[in-house]
Amino acid sequence: MHVLEQQLRFLFELDRLKAVYRQSMVASDNYRYENSAEHSWHIALLAQVLQEYAEQVIDINRVVNMLLIHDIVEIDAGDTFAFSQRYHSQEQADQEALAAHRIFGLLPSKQSEYMQQLWFEFEAAETADARFAKAMDRLLPFMQNMAVGGGSWCKYQVTKTQVIKRNADLQEIAPKLWAYFCQQLEIAVAKGWLLDE
Amino acid sequence: MHVLEQQLRFLFELDRLKAVYRQSMVASDNYRYENSAEHSWHIALLAQVLQEYAEQVIDINRVVNMLLIHDIVEIDAGDTFAFSQRYHSQEQADQEALAAHRIFGLLPSKQSEYMQQLWFEFEAAETADARFAKAMDRLLPFMQNMAVGGGSWCKYQVTKTQVIKRNADLQEIAPKLWAYFCQQLEIAVAKGWLLDE
Repeated sequence: MHVLEQQLRFLFELDRLKAVYRQSMVASDNYRYENSAEHSWHIALLAQVLQEYAEQVIDINRVVNMLLIHDIVEIDAGDTFAFSQRYHSQEQADQEALAAHRIFGLLPSKQSEYMQQLWFEFEAAETADARFAKAMDRLLPFMQNMAVGGGSWCKYQVTKTQVIKRNADLQEIAPKLWAYFCQQLEIAVAKGWLLDE
Repeated sequence: MHVLEQQLRFLFELDRLKAVYRQSMVASDNYRYENSAEHSWHIALLAQVLQEYAEQVIDINRVVNMLLIHDIVEIDAGDTFAFSQRYHSQEQADQEALAAHRIFGLLPSKQSEYMQQLWFEFEAAETADARFAKAMDRLLPFMQNMAVGGGSWCKYQVTKTQVIKRNADLQEIAPKLWAYFCQQLEIAVAKGWLLDE
Protein backbone atom coordinates (compact mmCIF):
# COMPACT_ATOMS: atom_id res chain seq x y z
CA MET A 1 0.00 0.00 0.00
CA HIS A 2 1.11 3.55 -0.69
CA VAL A 3 2.79 5.19 2.30
CA LEU A 4 0.42 8.17 2.38
CA GLU A 5 -2.57 5.86 2.20
CA GLN A 6 -1.33 3.98 5.29
CA GLN A 7 -0.82 7.23 7.15
CA LEU A 8 -4.29 8.48 6.25
CA ARG A 9 -5.87 5.22 7.43
CA PHE A 10 -4.21 5.69 10.81
CA LEU A 11 -5.27 9.33 10.98
CA PHE A 12 -8.91 8.47 10.18
CA GLU A 13 -8.80 5.69 12.77
CA LEU A 14 -7.82 8.25 15.43
CA ASP A 15 -11.26 9.79 15.08
CA ARG A 16 -12.62 6.86 17.10
CA LEU A 17 -10.80 7.96 20.27
CA LYS A 18 -13.27 10.86 20.40
CA ALA A 19 -15.97 8.26 21.09
CA VAL A 20 -14.19 6.64 24.05
CA TYR A 21 -15.61 8.12 27.25
CA ARG A 22 -13.86 8.27 30.61
CA GLN A 23 -15.06 8.66 34.19
CA SER A 24 -13.87 12.28 34.43
CA MET A 25 -16.38 15.03 33.89
CA VAL A 26 -16.06 18.27 31.96
CA ALA A 27 -17.28 20.92 34.37
CA SER A 28 -17.23 23.58 31.63
CA ASP A 29 -19.57 21.59 29.41
CA ASN A 30 -22.56 20.71 31.60
CA TYR A 31 -20.66 18.02 33.47
CA ARG A 32 -20.71 15.60 30.56
CA TYR A 33 -18.18 12.76 30.52
CA GLU A 34 -14.78 13.52 29.02
CA ASN A 35 -13.50 11.58 26.04
CA SER A 36 -9.97 10.24 25.69
CA ALA A 37 -9.05 12.48 22.73
CA GLU A 38 -9.67 15.76 24.55
CA HIS A 39 -8.09 14.26 27.68
CA SER A 40 -4.93 13.51 25.66
CA TRP A 41 -4.78 17.13 24.53
CA HIS A 42 -5.24 18.45 28.06
CA ILE A 43 -2.61 16.17 29.54
CA ALA A 44 -0.02 17.06 26.87
CA LEU A 45 -0.35 20.71 27.84
CA LEU A 46 -0.36 19.89 31.54
CA ALA A 47 2.98 18.11 31.18
CA GLN A 48 4.41 21.00 29.22
CA VAL A 49 3.30 23.64 31.70
CA LEU A 50 4.47 21.63 34.73
CA GLN A 51 7.75 20.30 33.28
CA GLU A 52 9.89 22.42 35.62
CA TYR A 53 8.76 20.29 38.57
CA ALA A 54 10.32 17.10 37.20
CA GLU A 55 13.05 16.00 39.60
CA GLN A 56 14.97 14.10 36.92
CA VAL A 57 16.02 15.46 33.51
CA ILE A 58 13.23 14.81 31.01
CA ASP A 59 12.84 15.38 27.29
CA ILE A 60 9.55 17.24 27.26
CA ASN A 61 8.97 16.66 23.54
CA ARG A 62 9.11 12.90 24.07
CA VAL A 63 6.80 13.25 27.07
CA VAL A 64 4.30 15.25 25.00
CA ASN A 65 4.43 12.69 22.20
CA MET A 66 3.90 9.86 24.67
CA LEU A 67 0.88 11.58 26.13
CA LEU A 68 -0.60 12.32 22.72
CA ILE A 69 -0.59 8.59 21.89
CA HIS A 70 -0.94 7.01 25.36
CA ASP A 71 -4.67 6.32 25.12
CA ILE A 72 -4.98 5.36 21.44
CA VAL A 73 -5.18 1.67 22.40
CA GLU A 74 -8.52 2.44 24.05
CA ILE A 75 -10.06 2.53 20.57
CA ASP A 76 -9.99 -1.27 20.75
CA ALA A 77 -9.56 -1.96 24.46
CA GLY A 78 -11.85 0.70 25.98
CA ASP A 79 -11.15 2.97 28.92
CA THR A 80 -10.84 1.27 32.30
CA PHE A 81 -11.51 3.16 35.50
CA ALA A 82 -8.30 3.56 37.50
CA PHE A 83 -9.86 2.19 40.68
CA SER A 84 -11.56 -0.82 39.13
CA GLN A 85 -10.34 -4.42 39.46
CA ARG A 86 -9.92 -4.69 35.72
CA TYR A 87 -7.40 -1.81 35.64
CA HIS A 88 -4.43 -3.90 36.68
CA SER A 89 -5.57 -7.18 35.11
CA GLN A 90 -3.44 -9.19 32.71
CA GLU A 91 -6.43 -9.47 30.40
CA GLN A 92 -6.63 -5.69 30.03
CA ALA A 93 -2.86 -5.41 29.49
CA ASP A 94 -3.01 -8.10 26.79
CA GLN A 95 -5.89 -6.38 25.01
CA GLU A 96 -4.06 -3.08 25.04
CA ALA A 97 -0.88 -4.62 23.64
CA LEU A 98 -2.90 -6.21 20.84
CA ALA A 99 -4.54 -2.86 20.17
CA ALA A 100 -1.14 -1.15 19.98
CA HIS A 101 -0.02 -3.66 17.37
CA ARG A 102 -3.15 -3.26 15.30
CA ILE A 103 -3.58 0.51 15.44
CA PHE A 104 0.04 1.69 15.24
CA GLY A 105 0.48 -1.15 12.72
CA LEU A 106 -1.66 0.81 10.28
CA LEU A 107 1.29 3.19 9.82
CA PRO A 108 4.33 2.61 7.58
CA SER A 109 6.85 0.43 9.44
CA LYS A 110 9.25 3.12 10.70
CA GLN A 111 6.49 5.27 12.15
CA SER A 112 4.71 2.23 13.49
CA GLU A 113 7.82 1.05 15.32
CA TYR A 114 8.49 4.50 16.75
CA MET A 115 4.96 4.83 18.11
CA GLN A 116 4.83 1.30 19.48
CA GLN A 117 8.15 1.74 21.25
CA LEU A 118 6.99 5.02 22.73
CA TRP A 119 3.73 3.45 23.87
CA PHE A 120 5.43 0.43 25.49
CA GLU A 121 7.92 2.77 27.16
CA PHE A 122 5.01 4.72 28.62
CA GLU A 123 3.30 1.54 29.82
CA ALA A 124 6.50 0.18 31.42
CA ALA A 125 6.96 3.48 33.31
CA GLU A 126 10.68 2.92 33.89
CA THR A 127 12.40 5.80 32.08
CA ALA A 128 12.30 9.32 33.47
CA ASP A 129 10.17 10.49 30.53
CA ALA A 130 7.61 7.71 30.99
CA ARG A 131 7.46 8.11 34.75
CA PHE A 132 6.80 11.84 34.46
CA ALA A 133 4.20 11.24 31.74
CA LYS A 134 2.41 8.63 33.89
CA ALA A 135 2.48 10.90 36.92
CA MET A 136 0.82 13.66 34.90
CA ASP A 137 -1.79 11.21 33.61
CA ARG A 138 -2.67 10.44 37.24
CA LEU A 139 -2.55 14.01 38.49
CA LEU A 140 -5.01 15.48 35.99
CA PRO A 141 -7.99 13.24 36.88
CA PHE A 142 -7.23 14.00 40.53
CA MET A 143 -7.41 17.74 39.78
CA GLN A 144 -10.58 17.23 37.76
CA ASN A 145 -12.31 15.34 40.57
CA MET A 146 -11.34 18.13 42.95
CA ALA A 147 -12.88 20.66 40.55
CA VAL A 148 -16.25 18.87 40.33
CA GLY A 149 -16.70 18.09 44.01
CA GLY A 150 -15.44 14.53 44.06
CA GLY A 151 -16.81 13.21 40.76
CA SER A 152 -15.99 9.54 40.17
CA TRP A 153 -14.57 9.17 43.73
CA CYS A 154 -18.01 9.64 45.24
CA LYS A 155 -19.74 7.55 42.58
CA TYR A 156 -17.44 4.58 43.24
CA GLN A 157 -16.68 5.21 46.94
CA VAL A 158 -12.95 5.53 46.38
CA THR A 159 -10.77 5.73 49.49
CA LYS A 160 -7.98 8.11 50.46
CA THR A 161 -5.61 5.13 50.64
CA GLN A 162 -6.39 4.14 47.04
CA VAL A 163 -5.71 7.65 45.77
CA ILE A 164 -2.46 7.93 47.71
CA LYS A 165 -1.31 4.56 46.40
CA ARG A 166 -2.10 5.57 42.82
CA ASN A 167 -0.16 8.84 43.07
CA ALA A 168 2.63 7.77 45.44
CA ASP A 169 5.33 7.96 42.74
CA LEU A 170 4.74 11.67 42.46
CA GLN A 171 6.69 12.24 45.68
CA GLU A 172 9.89 11.16 43.98
CA ILE A 173 9.05 12.34 40.44
CA ALA A 174 7.95 15.87 41.33
CA PRO A 175 8.13 16.70 45.06
CA LYS A 176 6.54 20.15 44.72
CA LEU A 177 3.53 18.69 42.96
CA TRP A 178 3.36 16.00 45.63
CA ALA A 179 3.08 18.72 48.27
CA TYR A 180 0.19 20.27 46.33
CA PHE A 181 -1.40 16.83 45.96
CA CYS A 182 -1.21 16.13 49.72
CA GLN A 183 -2.76 19.47 50.57
CA GLN A 184 -5.63 18.88 48.13
CA LEU A 185 -6.08 15.33 49.40
CA GLU A 186 -6.79 16.64 52.89
CA ILE A 187 -9.45 18.92 51.48
CA ALA A 188 -11.04 16.00 49.61
CA VAL A 189 -11.20 13.94 52.81
CA ALA A 190 -12.52 16.85 54.88
CA LYS A 191 -15.27 17.43 52.30
CA GLY A 192 -16.17 13.74 52.34
CA TRP A 193 -15.28 13.22 48.67
CA LEU A 194 -12.82 10.46 49.59
CA LEU A 195 -13.49 7.79 52.19
CA ASP A 196 -11.07 7.81 55.12
CA GLU A 197 -11.25 4.36 56.71
CA MET B 1 0.67 34.86 43.18
CA HIS B 2 2.55 31.62 43.58
CA VAL B 3 3.96 30.25 40.29
CA LEU B 4 2.24 26.86 40.62
CA GLU B 5 -1.06 28.55 41.39
CA GLN B 6 -0.80 30.59 38.17
CA GLN B 7 -0.03 27.45 36.20
CA LEU B 8 -2.96 25.56 37.71
CA ARG B 9 -5.33 28.41 36.90
CA PHE B 10 -4.27 28.22 33.27
CA LEU B 11 -4.62 24.44 33.25
CA PHE B 12 -8.14 24.58 34.72
CA GLU B 13 -9.07 27.28 32.21
CA LEU B 14 -8.14 24.92 29.37
CA ASP B 15 -11.10 22.73 30.33
CA ARG B 16 -13.35 25.31 28.66
CA LEU B 17 -11.99 24.53 25.18
CA LYS B 18 -13.81 21.20 25.47
CA ALA B 19 -17.05 23.20 25.35
CA VAL B 20 -16.22 25.10 22.14
CA TYR B 21 -17.90 23.30 19.24
CA ARG B 22 -16.81 23.44 15.60
CA GLN B 23 -18.57 22.74 12.31
CA SER B 24 -16.75 19.44 11.78
CA MET B 25 -18.54 16.25 12.73
CA VAL B 26 -17.22 13.17 14.50
CA ALA B 27 -18.34 10.28 12.30
CA SER B 28 -17.25 7.74 14.94
CA ASP B 29 -19.47 9.27 17.61
CA ASN B 30 -22.94 9.51 16.05
CA TYR B 31 -21.99 12.49 13.88
CA ARG B 32 -21.95 14.90 16.80
CA TYR B 33 -20.07 18.18 16.43
CA GLU B 34 -16.37 18.13 17.23
CA ASN B 35 -14.95 20.34 19.96
CA SER B 36 -11.76 22.35 19.67
CA ALA B 37 -9.87 20.39 22.34
CA GLU B 38 -10.17 17.01 20.62
CA HIS B 39 -9.54 18.75 17.29
CA SER B 40 -6.26 20.12 18.68
CA TRP B 41 -5.20 16.63 19.69
CA HIS B 42 -6.04 15.19 16.28
CA ILE B 43 -4.24 17.91 14.38
CA ALA B 44 -1.07 17.59 16.50
CA LEU B 45 -0.85 13.92 15.55
CA LEU B 46 -1.73 14.67 11.92
CA ALA B 47 1.20 17.07 11.68
CA GLN B 48 3.51 14.56 13.27
CA VAL B 49 2.50 11.70 10.99
CA LEU B 50 2.65 13.84 7.84
CA GLN B 51 5.82 15.80 8.67
CA GLU B 52 7.86 14.11 5.92
CA TYR B 53 5.80 15.93 3.27
CA ALA B 54 6.92 19.38 4.38
CA GLU B 55 8.88 20.94 1.52
CA GLN B 56 10.87 23.23 3.85
CA VAL B 57 12.79 22.18 6.95
CA ILE B 58 10.46 22.31 9.95
CA ASP B 59 10.90 21.76 13.68
CA ILE B 60 8.09 19.27 14.30
CA ASN B 61 8.12 19.81 18.08
CA ARG B 62 7.42 23.51 17.59
CA VAL B 63 4.71 22.66 15.07
CA VAL B 64 3.08 20.25 17.55
CA ASN B 65 3.23 22.84 20.32
CA MET B 66 1.70 25.47 18.05
CA LEU B 67 -1.15 23.16 17.16
CA LEU B 68 -1.79 22.21 20.78
CA ILE B 69 -2.35 25.88 21.64
CA HIS B 70 -3.63 27.30 18.33
CA ASP B 71 -7.32 27.25 19.30
CA ILE B 72 -7.11 28.19 22.98
CA VAL B 73 -8.19 31.76 22.14
CA GLU B 74 -11.58 30.33 21.15
CA ILE B 75 -12.38 29.99 24.86
CA ASP B 76 -13.09 33.73 24.73
CA ALA B 77 -13.51 34.43 21.03
CA GLY B 78 -15.47 31.35 19.92
CA ASP B 79 -14.92 29.19 16.86
CA THR B 80 -15.59 30.87 13.52
CA PHE B 81 -16.49 28.83 10.46
CA ALA B 82 -13.69 29.03 7.89
CA PHE B 83 -16.04 30.03 5.08
CA SER B 84 -17.97 32.67 6.99
CA GLN B 85 -17.57 36.43 6.51
CA ARG B 86 -16.50 36.82 10.11
CA TYR B 87 -13.53 34.50 9.63
CA HIS B 88 -11.26 37.12 8.10
CA SER B 89 -12.69 40.15 9.92
CA GLN B 90 -10.59 42.56 11.93
CA GLU B 91 -13.09 42.30 14.77
CA GLN B 92 -12.46 38.56 15.10
CA ALA B 93 -8.69 39.02 14.90
CA ASP B 94 -8.85 41.67 17.62
CA GLN B 95 -10.95 39.46 19.89
CA GLU B 96 -8.54 36.58 19.45
CA ALA B 97 -5.51 38.74 20.25
CA LEU B 98 -7.26 39.96 23.41
CA ALA B 99 -8.04 36.36 24.32
CA ALA B 100 -4.41 35.35 23.83
CA HIS B 101 -3.34 38.09 26.22
CA ARG B 102 -5.89 37.12 28.84
CA ILE B 103 -5.58 33.34 28.71
CA PHE B 104 -1.84 32.90 28.20
CA GLY B 105 -1.49 35.80 30.62
CA LEU B 106 -2.71 33.51 33.40
CA LEU B 107 0.69 31.79 33.24
CA PRO B 108 3.93 32.98 34.88
CA SER B 109 5.59 35.57 32.62
CA LYS B 110 8.16 33.38 30.87
CA GLN B 111 5.66 30.70 29.93
CA SER B 112 3.10 33.31 29.02
CA GLU B 113 5.53 35.04 26.64
CA TYR B 114 6.57 31.77 25.05
CA MET B 115 2.98 30.71 24.37
CA GLN B 116 1.90 34.14 23.13
CA GLN B 117 4.85 34.32 20.75
CA LEU B 118 4.11 30.84 19.46
CA TRP B 119 0.44 31.73 18.97
CA PHE B 120 1.18 34.99 17.14
CA GLU B 121 3.71 33.16 14.98
CA PHE B 122 1.01 30.64 14.06
CA GLU B 123 -1.46 33.40 13.26
CA ALA B 124 1.04 35.34 11.12
CA ALA B 125 1.78 32.15 9.11
CA GLU B 126 5.11 33.42 7.85
CA THR B 127 7.69 30.98 9.23
CA ALA B 128 8.04 27.46 7.82
CA ASP B 129 6.75 25.96 11.11
CA ALA B 130 3.67 28.17 11.19
CA ARG B 131 2.89 27.68 7.50
CA PHE B 132 3.04 23.91 7.85
CA ALA B 133 0.93 24.03 11.03
CA LYS B 134 -1.71 26.20 9.31
CA ALA B 135 -1.76 23.94 6.28
CA MET B 136 -2.45 20.95 8.53
CA ASP B 137 -5.20 22.87 10.32
CA ARG B 138 -6.88 23.37 6.94
CA LEU B 139 -6.30 19.88 5.62
CA LEU B 140 -7.91 17.99 8.51
CA PRO B 141 -11.38 19.59 8.27
CA PHE B 142 -11.19 18.93 4.51
CA MET B 143 -10.49 15.25 5.20
CA GLN B 144 -13.26 15.16 7.80
CA ASN B 145 -15.83 16.62 5.41
CA MET B 146 -14.81 14.03 2.83
CA ALA B 147 -15.33 11.30 5.43
CA VAL B 148 -18.88 12.41 6.32
CA GLY B 149 -20.17 13.00 2.79
CA GLY B 150 -19.65 16.75 2.58
CA GLY B 151 -20.61 17.83 6.11
CA SER B 152 -20.42 21.59 6.58
CA TRP B 153 -19.81 22.18 2.85
CA CYS B 154 -23.31 21.01 2.01
CA LYS B 155 -24.87 22.79 4.98
CA TYR B 156 -23.36 26.15 3.96
CA GLN B 157 -23.19 25.60 0.17
CA VAL B 158 -19.45 26.02 0.00
CA THR B 159 -17.90 26.19 -3.47
CA LYS B 160 -14.93 24.38 -4.99
CA THR B 161 -13.27 27.77 -5.56
CA GLN B 162 -13.54 28.65 -1.86
CA VAL B 163 -11.96 25.37 -0.81
CA ILE B 164 -9.13 25.68 -3.36
CA LYS B 165 -8.44 29.23 -2.21
CA ARG B 166 -8.33 28.15 1.44
CA ASN B 167 -5.87 25.32 0.77
CA ALA B 168 -3.84 26.89 -2.07
CA ASP B 169 -0.70 27.27 0.06
CA LEU B 170 -0.49 23.50 0.39
CA GLN B 171 0.89 23.27 -3.16
CA GLU B 172 4.08 25.01 -2.07
CA ILE B 173 4.17 23.74 1.54
CA ALA B 174 3.63 20.03 0.83
CA PRO B 175 3.27 19.20 -2.89
CA LYS B 176 2.46 15.52 -2.34
CA LEU B 177 -0.39 16.39 0.00
CA TRP B 178 -1.57 18.94 -2.54
CA ALA B 179 -1.80 16.17 -5.14
CA TYR B 180 -3.92 14.13 -2.71
CA PHE B 181 -6.06 17.19 -1.98
CA CYS B 182 -6.72 17.85 -5.70
CA GLN B 183 -7.71 14.26 -6.29
CA GLN B 184 -10.12 14.31 -3.35
CA LEU B 185 -11.50 17.68 -4.45
CA GLU B 186 -12.59 16.23 -7.78
CA ILE B 187 -14.44 13.48 -5.92
CA ALA B 188 -16.18 16.06 -3.73
CA VAL B 189 -17.35 17.99 -6.80
CA ALA B 190 -18.44 14.85 -8.64
CA LYS B 191 -20.48 13.80 -5.59
CA GLY B 192 -22.09 17.22 -5.39
CA TRP B 193 -20.62 17.98 -1.95
CA LEU B 194 -18.98 21.15 -3.27
CA LEU B 195 -20.63 23.59 -5.63
CA ASP B 196 -18.84 23.98 -8.96
CA GLU B 197 -19.99 27.28 -10.46
